[in-house]
Amino acid sequence: MSEAVQTLEGWYALHDFRLIDWNAWHAATPQERKHATEELNTFLSQWQQVENDKLGSTAVYSIVGQKADFVFMQLRETLEELNDLENAFNKSSFAAFTIPVYSYVSIVELSSYLAKPGVDPAEDPELQARLKPILPKAKHICFYPMNKRRDGNDNWYMLPADDRKTMMRSHGMIGRTYAGKVKQIITGSVGLDDWEWGVTLFSEDPLHFKKLVYEMRFDEVSARFGEFGDFYVGNLLTPEKFAQLIQV
Amino acid sequence: MSEAVQTLEGWYALHDFRLIDWNAWHAATPQERKHATEELNTFLSQWQQVENDKLGSTAVYSIVGQKADFVFMQLRETLEELNDLENAFNKSSFAAFTIPVYSYVSIVELSSYLAKPGVDPAEDPELQARLKPILPKAKHICFYPMNKRRDGNDNWYMLPADDRKTMMRSHGMIGRTYAGKVKQIITGSVGLDDWEWGVTLFSEDPLHFKKLVYEMRFDEVSARFGEFGDFYVGNLLTPEKFAQLIQV
Amino acid sequence: MSEAVQTLEGWYALHDFRLIDWNAWHAATPQERKHATEELNTFLSQWQQVENDKLGSTAVYSIVGQKADFVFMQLRETLEELNDLENAFNKSSFAAFTIPVYSYVSIVELSSYLAKPGVDPAEDPELQARLKPILPKAKHICFYPMNKRRDGNDNWYMLPADDRKTMMRSHGMIGRTYAGKVKQIITGSVGLDDWEWGVTLFSEDPLHFKKLVYEMRFDEVSARFGEFGDFYVGNLLTPEKFAQLIQV
Amino acid sequence: MSEAVQTLEGWYALHDFRLIDWNAWHAATPQERKHATEELNTFLSQWQQVENDKLGSTAVYSIVGQKADFVFMQLRETLEELNDLENAFNKSSFAAFTIPVYSYVSIVELSSYLAKPGVDPAEDPELQARLKPILPKAKHICFYPMNKRRDGNDNWYMLPADDRKTMMRSHGMIGRTYAGKVKQIITGSVGLDDWEWGVTLFSEDPLHFKKLVYEMRFDEVSARFGEFGDFYVGNLLTPEKFAQLIQV
Amino acid sequence: MSEAVQTLEGWYALHDFRLIDWNAWHAATPQERKHATEELNTFLSQWQQVENDKLGSTAVYSIVGQKADFVFMQLRETLEELNDLENAFNKSSFAAFTIPVYSYVSIVELSSYLAKPGVDPAEDPELQARLKPILPKAKHICFYPMNKRRDGNDNWYMLPADDRKTMMRSHGMIGRTYAGKVKQIITGSVGLDDWEWGVTLFSEDPLHFKKLVYEMRFDEVSARFGEFGDFYVGNLLTPEKFAQLIQV
Repeated sequence: MSEAVQTLEGWYALHDFRLIDWNAWHAATPQERKHATEELNTFLSQWQQVENDKLGSTAVYSIVGQKADFVFMQLRETLEELNDLENAFNKSSFAAFTIPVYSYVSIVELSSYLAKPGVDPAEDPELQARLKPILPKAKHICFYPMNKRRDGNDNWYMLPADDRKTMMRSHGMIGRTYAGKVKQIITGSVGLDDWEWGVTLFSEDPLHFKKLVYEMRFDEVSARFGEFGDFYVGNLLTPEKFAQLIQV
Repeated sequence: MSEAVQTLEGWYALHDFRLIDWNAWHAATPQERKHATEELNTFLSQWQQVENDKLGSTAVYSIVGQKADFVFMQLRETLEELNDLENAFNKSSFAAFTIPVYSYVSIVELSSYLAKPGVDPAEDPELQARLKPILPKAKHICFYPMNKRRDGNDNWYMLPADDRKTMMRSHGMIGRTYAGKVKQIITGSVGLDDWEWGVTLFSEDPLHFKKLVYEMRFDEVSARFGEFGDFYVGNLLTPEKFAQLIQV
Repeated sequence: MSEAVQTLEGWYALHDFRLIDWNAWHAATPQERKHATEELNTFLSQWQQVENDKLGSTAVYSIVGQKADFVFMQLRETLEELNDLENAFNKSSFAAFTIPVYSYVSIVELSSYLAKPGVDPAEDPELQARLKPILPKAKHICFYPMNKRRDGNDNWYMLPADDRKTMMRSHGMIGRTYAGKVKQIITGSVGLDDWEWGVTLFSEDPLHFKKLVYEMRFDEVSARFGEFGDFYVGNLLTPEKFAQLIQV
Repeated sequence: MSEAVQTLEGWYALHDFRLIDWNAWHAATPQERKHATEELNTFLSQWQQVENDKLGSTAVYSIVGQKADFVFMQLRETLEELNDLENAFNKSSFAAFTIPVYSYVSIVELSSYLAKPGVDPAEDPELQARLKPILPKAKHICFYPMNKRRDGNDNWYMLPADDRKTMMRSHGMIGRTYAGKVKQIITGSVGLDDWEWGVTLFSEDPLHFKKLVYEMRFDEVSARFGEFGDFYVGNLLTPEKFAQLIQV
Repeated sequence: MSEAVQTLEGWYALHDFRLIDWNAWHAATPQERKHATEELNTFLSQWQQVENDKLGSTAVYSIVGQKADFVFMQLRETLEELNDLENAFNKSSFAAFTIPVYSYVSIVELSSYLAKPGVDPAEDPELQARLKPILPKAKHICFYPMNKRRDGNDNWYMLPADDRKTMMRSHGMIGRTYAGKVKQIITGSVGLDDWEWGVTLFSEDPLHFKKLVYEMRFDEVSARFGEFGDFYVGNLLTPEKFAQLIQV
């Protein structure tokens, strides 16, 4: 048996992608739309308050193309809180005008590849800030799920631990060259959702997403072992921009 | 021909995943909702009585994310009972407010890898309790179906019986290190549903699901031979919590 | 070129899987339901008459889980008869309360692996009875489609005819140990539907399905060369039980 | 680079598979059904006139099973004509009672494997008749799309031209043994639709489809290099039979 | 690590494929259709103005077959502009009569394989015209997404840079033989959408699409390393032709 990687976990994550049901939205009365918009704003305010209280964090972005109109990325301490939060939203009058299209359940994860030797992670404030992060309000978001491949000779989980460590370090070095350009949040989802990890990227310039992911694809970890799900890319939705989006 | 593994079977299982049709639920009159809720509660009570009578068992959990809102995991002596039970539910007024999204038919299974030498399984009360188990009321559930791979050199069913046995013992040893943390129910579904096994895990802490499944992934049985379907994770729905979930 | 297997064909087969649209069924008036039920019963009687006249055969079973509520397995002399039969049903008032979910077109097939040397199949009453079979009224049904794999070194169609014959004989011997327990109808669908064969099993005990399919999976023919579609399992629906199923 | 095969092209093809929306058809008034039926008949007559004028050809067949109720296979000189024709149909009152389920865009193709040496294809009336064929009115149709595999050692497009030619000749010889039994129309769809070719077979006996496709599967071209999509099989729909099909 | 290819990027691209909801269109009043048509025409004019101002470009084509009725291919300077543009369209009364079926997010890309040595791309007007192109008004369009394969020995991203360069040059030479016949726009989508590239071809003759793509398939880059998504092919929709398309 190959030695498993030790991981550190922080907040649970729910990515909740939705379309707007424009036909229903148009068919609603101005009063119904007003009421629904107010309920949406109440949620946005509540979530902001949770973030201010450092009990969680929320990112709200539009999604370009037909896959979705917007995404809520929610971080909370427990799975119950995420579940309560999605159920409360589902019951709202605004949710009745949306169509759920994709969601992802995971947990913020740091791998021991990145751990500092001799430091207790629980006592490392930098690590703790990364495990329970306040999500950036960057202009753009990119999300995709991924696996490490287990296919014939390209089986990540059969590699010696040292080989995996060496490859991950090289992989991490590409990431580091994008420091300041791209903020990356890795969430683990083994046992929680259909892929092994979720990757959420934030940047002021979406071209950085393309450059970073493309450069990494030539790295052995991605080239031989990366399996990628669907990619979602979008723009920051401040409460004002959300109001604009649904203005008819 | 490679020697087939002897298995012991207990109760049949039906996992029934459903979404709540919130738009229809909102559109219903308070009386319609009251009536539907009463029918749901009658089912929950009946199933509890069946469990009290040791004629079956039922677990009721919410599911986090958009895949489903809740799951009924039902164990019964026969396939007819499972079928009667799902048909009775389908005809109820509460079912009319739900949308079936996934189900799984299987049967509780123990493999002979785990059998004690020299003991007749039918006379082993511990085995019988595991074949006809009362499902735990743990805080969290995790379900996923899986296959053993048959792909080129990674073909489980072409391995010598001894190799399979050795690997399964090592695999089981990981599971044993989670004793007290994770309760695992394996159900076989060859000839019954689309994958070969269903795995249902129960735990007080969902992080154990991630740790257990991830650690196992580095074990040769999973690394080389495991193929995994979709993962569903959720929280215990007592009758009180179910009432809360559908309260609008 | 590898030598093709000679096959014998009998009746054409249509497996027609459907869900009941419970919401529409509940919304119908008692008179509409009565009329639809009478139309269903007329079909069931007609099909029974066709079977009595040895011009075809019909099996009617419930399906456990969400995949379907019931299946009609129809055997007829020609593809036109199957088409007429499905169109007549589709036009009925009962069909309006059902949702088609899966169907399979094939033809009863016996392979020359099983042929007796020196006997003209057309003159062999046992073979003819197997090619134009009256479907059993066993308590349980199991259906799944399958292919022989063509993948790298595991390419059934590139094997020498003798190797295929040897393997199929060994495969058939497993089947024979289930004689009296499981009745198996093989239908060929190359050029007719998306998989190469359909397998329909009948038994008084659904555990036999699991035991048989699992044991065969360790046989080289299945282990290296079997590709399996979705599995459907269910219980006999006599006219009385069908009436019960749709009673609301 | 392996040498590309020279191909000859004739008429563009559109296979248009549709279900009948029986619930909507039943809900329509007799006058609405009469009007829709007349529109359908007008189309059938127009298409027959186009065929009489040798400006195209149309085949109309039912499809057995739930995949579709009928297919229009249309051949025309240009892609614009096909597009106009489908748009005109889509706007008709009859189309409102149908549900599009699958379509295929391709162009009649002959490969140079079959070309006579020393004859200019444009001057060969036999070739021209095959490139712009009047579709048979045989009792049965079979359609499936296919690719040549590009997978590891089984990569058709990496083979030397001579190997491909030798294999295709052997493949064609199987087809020739079905001359008079099965009429085959090959349409190319590289750059036009999702598979590389469409195969449309016509025969008085659907068993010939099964025998031909099965025999070919043992031929190296199919065994090692053939990838097959979904199969559709059905019966000739003369205007009279179409009228019967939609009679309620 | 294999050396990543340097790329140059221009305008962002959104391909937006839609069906017309003919039933809703027929059900609308003449006034509703008139209003919707006017809104469509306003969009077409606005987009033309953007193109005249060299701030973007738009191509409008019908799609043959059931996959879609038309596509808007939009090029703009930023992802926000594309998002605004799709949201504005989604809110229009014309959009209410359409059904989104597929979209693709990417960015016009030129690879350094094609760069002239010693010339700064930013100063090369030819390159700039290709990075921010005015889309052709050719009679026909063809779109498909694609990946470079990463599969066992056929792993593009593990090849030495020189091998990749050599193969791409040979690939480009096929493209060049179609100069004047086919105009090709490559858009990169790594990190933006589900495939790595989108390919959009324009031609006066759709047969060129087939000839070009087929010839390339025998080239090692495509034969061993090309993975292709769905193909969409269609005809130019001038405002007049669009008006005709929706005339009922």
